[in-house]
Amino acid sequence: MTARVHLFDTTLRDGAQTTGVDFSLDDKRAVAAMLDKLGIDYVEGGYPGANPLDTAFFAEKPTRNAKFAAFGMTKRAGRSAANDPGIAALLEAKADAIVFVAKSSDYHVRVALEISLEENLIGIRESVEAAKAAGREVMLDCEHFFDGYKANPDYALACARTAYEAGARWVVLCDTNGGSLPDEVGAIVAEVTRTVPGEYLGIHAHDDCGCAVANSLAAVESGVRQIQGTLNGLGERCGNANLVTLIGALKLKDKYRERFSLGVDENQLGELSHVSRALDEMLNRAPNVHAPFVGSSAFATKAGIHASAVLKDPRTYEHVAPEATGNTRKVLISDQGGKSNLVAELERIGVTLGRDDPRLGRVLEEVKDKEAQGYAFEGADASFFLLAKRIMREVPEYFAVERFKVSVERRYNANGELVTFSEATVKVKVGEEELISAAEGNGPVNALDTALRKDLGRYQSLIEGLRLVDYKVRIFQGGTDAVTRVLIESADETGARWTTVGVSPNIIDASFQALVDSITYKLVRAGATA
Amino acid sequence: MTARVHLFDTTLRDGAQTTGVDFSLDDKRAVAAMLDKLGIDYVEGGYPGANPLDTAFFAEKPTRNAKFAAFGMTKRAGRSAANDPGIAALLEAKADAIVFVAKSSDYHVRVALEISLEENLIGIRESVEAAKAAGREVMLDCEHFFDGYKANPDYALACARTAYEAGARWVVLCDTNGGSLPDEVGAIVAEVTRTVPGEYLGIHAHDDCGCAVANSLAAVESGVRQIQGTLNGLGERCGNANLVTLIGALKLKDKYRERFSLGVDENQLGELSHVSRALDEMLNRAPNVHAPFVGSSAFATKAGIHASAVLKDPRTYEHVAPEATGNTRKVLISDQGGKSNLVAELERIGVTLGRDDPRLGRVLEEVKDKEAQGYAFEGADASFFLLAKRIMREVPEYFAVERFKVSVERRYNANGELVTFSEATVKVKVGEEELISAAEGNGPVNALDTALRKDLGRYQSLIEGLRLVDYKVRIFQGGTDAVTRVLIESADETGARWTTVGVSPNIIDASFQALVDSITYKLVRAGATA
Repeated sequence: MTARVHLFDTTLRDGAQTTGVDFSLDDKRAVAAMLDKLGIDYVEGGYPGANPLDTAFFAEKPTRNAKFAAFGMTKRAGRSAANDPGIAALLEAKADAIVFVAKSSDYHVRVALEISLEENLIGIRESVEAAKAAGREVMLDCEHFFDGYKANPDYALACARTAYEAGARWVVLCDTNGGSLPDEVGAIVAEVTRTVPGEYLGIHAHDDCGCAVANSLAAVESGVRQIQGTLNGLGERCGNANLVTLIGALKLKDKYRERFSLGVDENQLGELSHVSRALDEMLNRAPNVHAPFVGSSAFATKAGIHASAVLKDPRTYEHVAPEATGNTRKVLISDQGGKSNLVAELERIGVTLGRDDPRLGRVLEEVKDKEAQGYAFEGADASFFLLAKRIMREVPEYFAVERFKVSVERRYNANGELVTFSEATVKVKVGEEELISAAEGNGPVNALDTALRKDLGRYQSLIEGLRLVDYKVRIFQGGTDAVTRVLIESADETGARWTTVGVSPNIIDASFQALVDSITYKLVRAGATA
Repeated sequence: MTARVHLFDTTLRDGAQTTGVDFSLDDKRAVAAMLDKLGIDYVEGGYPGANPLDTAFFAEKPTRNAKFAAFGMTKRAGRSAANDPGIAALLEAKADAIVFVAKSSDYHVRVALEISLEENLIGIRESVEAAKAAGREVMLDCEHFFDGYKANPDYALACARTAYEAGARWVVLCDTNGGSLPDEVGAIVAEVTRTVPGEYLGIHAHDDCGCAVANSLAAVESGVRQIQGTLNGLGERCGNANLVTLIGALKLKDKYRERFSLGVDENQLGELSHVSRALDEMLNRAPNVHAPFVGSSAFATKAGIHASAVLKDPRTYEHVAPEATGNTRKVLISDQGGKSNLVAELERIGVTLGRDDPRLGRVLEEVKDKEAQGYAFEGADASFFLLAKRIMREVPEYFAVERFKVSVERRYNANGELVTFSEATVKVKVGEEELISAAEGNGPVNALDTALRKDLGRYQSLIEGLRLVDYKVRIFQGGTDAVTRVLIESADETGARWTTVGVSPNIIDASFQALVDSITYKLVRAGATA
């Protein structure tokens, strides 16, 4: 008999405060869909009314199973809840749940808000009542709860109790500045459960002491049944509690799974690594290879001593099985594990090669070789597909690019304005035919892409509907020199999408590789013959 | 009356197992010196005898105050300690302390080592005695201690007790697979202190559950007096306990500093941010901007609501003062921020504009305007500085780029190989002089950068030492079209570094803006006149 712990994701609200992170409307919809699919209970989409993008995001509920939550402030002092524009915006939002944030520290009420302690409580009560009356599930985020409790426990509890008595489904205790430590959190939460039952309590931790995950677990041990966090621990300053780590721990550590259950099932858990990486891809953030459970190095052993023990019996060094979260073991001295992984990965993208097929070994070698150069096939399925198919000699030589030239020129035009021109010329050989095309673009890659697809002779009709949909660049140190990795997502007239990769110190060269792969992939899928 | 907690750094031994990390001999000496200066008690330098570099490193003690520790295995079964080459290598090393690692889990002794439980204990005792007889301080790392204790507490304790009774100064309890959780660690350590006194115990945690720091703190609460970890949480898989975070917590959280003291004093603490960044620089690793206490974003607030509260009174949102560890507060310019933010941020980068100065309003407008186009000034202080100074008319027109042309060409060379060439031509006007330069590069941006800095007439000597150190690209939707944002980090001969930004749909154009800003910034800082 396990207790149900609810997961509340605030990647799109608190996570949006991260330095250098911006979510477009499309990004928000994609993330909400991913969270929904993962089995998250609540998706906090943002702060409708505070900015136009969030208001637009709340025009329509983007999740099927997960509850969609809107964040906002309790009513301003001196106004009624009915006359508060912030609350009005929240009620207009197509949200199942409304999350109010209120100060629960007397210091903050007096110094930051400059209102009386009583007015703050009234604000909490009337806001919660208003939202409840409008049929929403209501939550109160008690901001600065732990500092507030340490300074004035009665007032902090009064805030929590007021929300609970006003009908809030959840009262969330927030360690807003991330300065609390696990045993403090455990002890304080245990105290709070004497006023508000654990089944109504949530925890919202930050990582300023490196203890957000531990604080969240301590709170659950003391009775809370909702955990707030973000994917990959996104968030301002040091980030929010990492929900990915918490899902891994709660689902896989005996200590927890014997007593708690989540909305995430085993299959969804198997997608955890993918979700974590997809978010980093979307935000063009370098993934944390050391992330617990899902990092690409989370199960990588380098040391000879460890490696042989791991191969003898993985339980000797792995606290959980990597496959449970869709991750893989990396043992850098042997390719035993490598082959099984590869067969599975190839199967996934539609290439069948048996374990004993000699070509499998060559594919593995080629992959390792390319990865050492900086290629990453994770998220570049079409290039991975072509790599394998080329080794299987199943990719015809449709065309050869004999030469290309790309130039970007900035100069004064006839009107005396400084303008930038981008131009590309490409010479291809299709069968016996030599074709040369030129194109302009809003940038060098756009010009090259257009020129490359302008005239491919007899294949032209097959690539008419092809277009570049997304372009990502990562520059990193591949040894002593900087290496550029380009990922290109393409789409065609059927709506199909695929991603290809290119690597070079030269960004144009890297882009070129990815473009050629993209066209080749389309021709292979279209069944074109050479 | 505080209890002394000893810090044991294993960056150069366990940290060296990190994916993609290699320390040269010079690197090891530099890190050891940094740790010594920081006030660390023990520096574990490596595994002499296991590889030539470590053996060479132990030819001479590299620290003045910190104890220098050598790591190795207990004697092999069937040999005497006197005849064990591993122990011989350890005794040859110029180390103050010797750290033996031994299995303390019966499962590992039987399955991984394939020896009897008794033989393992003999190995521990005889190794510790041998090193003690040779005048060294001796430690035993009890590998897999927590899993071992959960499965067979008597045996795990027997290992610990054997080392203690043989004269070990420290018995270190290792959570080798990182699978233990804080309350388990706390409870088990408390039990162990009934066999080995806390003053003789150490903790060695890993971050596989995101709880290494919390586990270390829990162990200290239960009585251990040595913490093992690495700078920046380096280490294989998910890393070791982050000593930087632990130093911050133990020195700055009241909960700890009232009861514990370290070898690190307040001045040394003020160097913590620098040490953390210096290590990342050395290893060419992207720093974790979100790292607790020392990350460049650890005290960065974006939201308008938070920002105005922070400025009113930093204690409202900061759990500790950033300056204590040599870090700074950052109130990020965002389109939610207002004048108060701006005045503070400008002050931080050395620009003084009063709140009522009309130019401040123009700067704010320009920032918001540029941010709407896709510029982000967080992390691009030099461009932000120039933006303000331009409005204040304090940036002379040093040079004007009349024209540039960048081309990338891929074609067959004389040897029939397909190669890629990148070339740039830049025409600048410096005063009355028109200068035209050409350069090649490994990519278009490299070529443009080189050409731009090849001949700037009378300013040439001022920019001789200038070089491009890092280049980051982000492409995102700025409205309906893709926009490219480029961040360039430059350095000069004095070691100063600064970052500039450029935005355009054209990546070359965006890079160009950032390059021009970088040169201009250098000239302004050098006090050049037009």
